[in-house]
Amino acid sequence: MILTVTLNAALDITYRVPRLRPRASHRVTEVVERPGGKGLNVARVLAALGHDTVVTGFAGGPTGAALREGLAAYGRVTDPAHGRVTDALVGVVGTTRRTVGVVDDASGDTTQLNEPGPLVTTPEWTAFTGTYARLLRDAAAVALCGSLPPGVPVGTYAQLVREARAAGVPVLLDTSGEALRRGIAARPDVVKPNADELAGLTGFAEPLRATRDARRRGAHAVAASLGADGMLAVTADGAWRATPPRRLAGNPTGAGDSAVAGLLSGLVEGLPWPDRLARAVALSAATVRAPAAGEFDRATYAELLPRIEVSEIRSAA
Amino acid sequence: MILTVTLNAALDITYRVPRLRPRASHRVTEVVERPGGKGLNVARVLAALGHDTVVTGFAGGPTGAALREGLAAYGRVTDPAHGRVTDALVGVVGTTRRTVGVVDDASGDTTQLNEPGPLVTTPEWTAFTGTYARLLRDAAAVALCGSLPPGVPVGTYAQLVREARAAGVPVLLDTSGEALRRGIAARPDVVKPNADELAGLTGFAEPLRATRDARRRGAHAVAASLGADGMLAVTADGAWRATPPRRLAGNPTGAGDSAVAGLLSGLVEGLPWPDRLARAVALSAATVRAPAAGEFDRATYAELLPRIEVSEIRSAA
Repeated sequence: MILTVTLNAALDITYRVPRLRPRASHRVTEVVERPGGKGLNVARVLAALGHDTVVTGFAGGPTGAALREGLAAYGRVTDPAHGRVTDALVGVVGTTRRTVGVVDDASGDTTQLNEPGPLVTTPEWTAFTGTYARLLRDAAAVALCGSLPPGVPVGTYAQLVREARAAGVPVLLDTSGEALRRGIAARPDVVKPNADELAGLTGFAEPLRATRDARRRGAHAVAASLGADGMLAVTADGAWRATPPRRLAGNPTGAGDSAVAGLLSGLVEGLPWPDRLARAVALSAATVRAPAAGEFDRATYAELLPRIEVSEIRSAA
Repeated sequence: MILTVTLNAALDITYRVPRLRPRASHRVTEVVERPGGKGLNVARVLAALGHDTVVTGFAGGPTGAALREGLAAYGRVTDPAHGRVTDALVGVVGTTRRTVGVVDDASGDTTQLNEPGPLVTTPEWTAFTGTYARLLRDAAAVALCGSLPPGVPVGTYAQLVREARAAGVPVLLDTSGEALRRGIAARPDVVKPNADELAGLTGFAEPLRATRDARRRGAHAVAASLGADGMLAVTADGAWRATPPRRLAGNPTGAGDSAVAGLLSGLVEGLPWPDRLARAVALSAATVRAPAAGEFDRATYAELLPRIEVSEIRSAA
């Protein structure tokens, strides 16, 4: 199985309104609630690709209960080609955060409101580390995803990266800011920053230069997601650029999580880097065409996968 | 006791953000959750004025449970000058709606997002009407507040007004649109529209003309709330305008509900109309100075109450 860690899971709520106008009162025309947080989205895409996944992290309060109920529904999928999603979240006294995405029907734009996460106590953190160590024993790979909730030290991802590597489990890190800076120094197998995270980490705006710089900070491979421009990877085997055949309009939420699922499934299946990148880019683009993070449009994925252009970058580092 | 009916109760959530920008992602800096819906706000203000209140209407799902938990906290108030708030909400299978108010810290403005209410089934409605009839027996007055949830016929307030009047219980109606139009025809003792609701009902923008027209549609008295301009009442005893001594900046959410509490407590205490209006206007203004609907600033209330100017309107109807 593939393990995904979501320390700051969320109940994702999506509101549709005819038009969002600051200072006005809006009648919400549609409400959708889903289990959320990057690692949970990654797990759902991995399961749709046929991989059994286990999700861990924290959940608590009424929103945590709603999140776990939603997750159990994915676990009950009976399509034999579909992997299972198993809930190994650790209970906390605090309340799982909500995120509210307000979709303006007139423009299609989304305005996002993210609550802060619950405070994680020391005994809760200890319970999590025990669960993590146990789950690593059966994991083919692990993804560490998203922000850290209050009470969790900023160096936490570095610790979790080291434990995965000590257990011989390939580890991918997808986070931002100081958590990324500290985590990358612990030498994860892959990091997947987006353009903003990469620029924040390295100070370089030019993607190739920033990706190379990020790799020098400790990651064995850096696969940067560049939105509609595709991905750029600098690895021990070489460097590649993967580009979709056209720009796709839609909701970019979750595109990065689908890219992580593409990279991780490709790694576990032993695919070479160009194939991993093609899969990641096709999945990202197919996610933009789906209504929610953690989902992708299968027809778009099937159509795009053979049409992703992957070119090797041979310029000097 | 005073009965308040909130057919479309809500869990009110308030988010603070440094600055609300459409299409951006926001980190919410503060989350506050409170039982909401107009009748619940009215009950909280009535209780703060020393009146025991009973709230009925519908609640269901995890948000309904959170709402009732919040309401129980008000019921536990031990200040002997404070009335009790008793929960007589009827359970429904559907989920109580949320309202999300996003406060922009830079401007102080609030952007409101209101979910639709739960679908009320026929057996649930029957359970409610039984509860309502039973509660009317002990009620000194009843307030019918807010919008109707899906599944509840638009003529419902007319039915509830007639039942209250048949039971000899004075009834105040505070709603809008077609529910107000139908309800007013059943001859409630008081309706309390705001300027928009009044214009929507009558087609007249000029408040005095609109208030008089509204009264001709069936209400024994119309007390219109005109925001910072105070209130205007046309009754069988005469017509009055009540004006605060100055405009108060702040959050207007709940000001209308506090006006209802002022009118209703004054009615139950046998106050003449000018005193009811002075109380309603002082409470409204004191609510603008409080952080949340259903609360008011006691010092502002005490300071303003003797300074509300109430003038009789002697022009011909």
